[in-house]
Amino acid sequence: MKLLYKGKTKDVYQLEDGNYILKFKDDMTGTDGKFDPGANTVGLTIDGAGKSSLKLTKMFFEILEEKNIPTHFIDANIEEATMTVKPAAMFGNGLEVICRYKAVGSFLRRYGMYAKEGQDLDAFVEVTLKDDQRGDPPISEDALHMLNIVTREEYAKLKDLTVKISNIVKEELAKKNLELYDIKLEFGKVNGEIVLIDEISGGNMRVYKDGKYIEPLLLEKLLLQ
Amino acid sequence: MKLLYKGKTKDVYQLEDGNYILKFKDDMTGTDGKFDPGANTVGLTIDGAGKSSLKLTKMFFEILEEKNIPTHFIDANIEEATMTVKPAAMFGNGLEVICRYKAVGSFLRRYGMYAKEGQDLDAFVEVTLKDDQRGDPPISEDALHMLNIVTREEYAKLKDLTVKISNIVKEELAKKNLELYDIKLEFGKVNGEIVLIDEISGGNMRVYKDGKYIEPLLLEKLLLQ
Repeated sequence: MKLLYKGKTKDVYQLEDGNYILKFKDDMTGTDGKFDPGANTVGLTIDGAGKSSLKLTKMFFEILEEKNIPTHFIDANIEEATMTVKPAAMFGNGLEVICRYKAVGSFLRRYGMYAKEGQDLDAFVEVTLKDDQRGDPPISEDALHMLNIVTREEYAKLKDLTVKISNIVKEELAKKNLELYDIKLEFGKVNGEIVLIDEISGGNMRVYKDGKYIEPLLLEKLLLQ
Repeated sequence: MKLLYKGKTKDVYQLEDGNYILKFKDDMTGTDGKFDPGANTVGLTIDGAGKSSLKLTKMFFEILEEKNIPTHFIDANIEEATMTVKPAAMFGNGLEVICRYKAVGSFLRRYGMYAKEGQDLDAFVEVTLKDDQRGDPPISEDALHMLNIVTREEYAKLKDLTVKISNIVKEELAKKNLELYDIKLEFGKVNGEIVLIDEISGGNMRVYKDGKYIEPLLLEKLLLQ
């Protein structure tokens, strides 16, 4: 098993059969010990955080599979905190596709002149580049196209998949009276088909209950226990 | 004559007939005494800078008028450094529409992972909000539409006008062996029609000659003298 990449919250290994293993770590994004799904740095480490993220990711990827949404998921080993996935080609060096239901976080920091905190945003989609050095800048469809990162056809597909997946997650959460504010998805290509990659857990979404933010570990308990 | 607005490089007055007067000041955007067309602060003041900007603006607005590109321009008084214009309604609290022929400035700071400094960009258009407090954030067509700042139809028109105007400016500069790297335009609505407003001068574009940046005052001399 060959280490391909060490990420902030996951390491990626390559198996001999060509598939990849994602090792979920106990590190979480944030700053100064405070969790923040939008942060670019590891802010804290909590025992069991990796397994907890993987449990939720497994649950959501299996729900998506039932609904014929393509993902890279093959299977998960919760004890080892590892997930076996199909190897996917990235768009450029990686994109994040965000779907927003409420104006919070970086959206509000950018567009606060025109949006009130917490205002409804009807599944608004935007794309950011994965580029820690440049603070994950937002990028338009035109720029993605011009820089040969995403074709027009792929952009439409990414946007459509993002809204579909986010709405499924939102409905699952609503069953437990949890409200999805925003979610950050990653996509790759497997044999030319665009598929969801990475994870779906408290680590890449903001979830609220009765107006109070739900931390990732509590989210897993509320959804799975 | 009633003062409506004090800007960084221009003040706006309202005439009794309803038209506006723009008073071009000698203040220029930049930081620490160094001119920067992309800056959000007044960085320096040069005697005659206002008149110089107005002379170029008059020249370009007259060229655009001949080519049937709608602008807010009525006439200019160079001695007074004032321009009489039609009153135009803003998009929200104001937008800047940027047309880029070379990867420099904020484009490169955001997308440097995928673009080399000075690489050709084929009239790439992007929009930023005029919002000093939030650093003039870039905004997508989808966000402009969702936040009720620009309709889809208006966006297409803004993009089309921006490329047309920028190409005209680029061609004028090329006649003097000057190269346009990027230009920042503003638009408003007069009786529902989208028109170019504000100015076209060294203050809102980056121009190079033989690979060397041309300062706004020198640009005016090279074009008009």
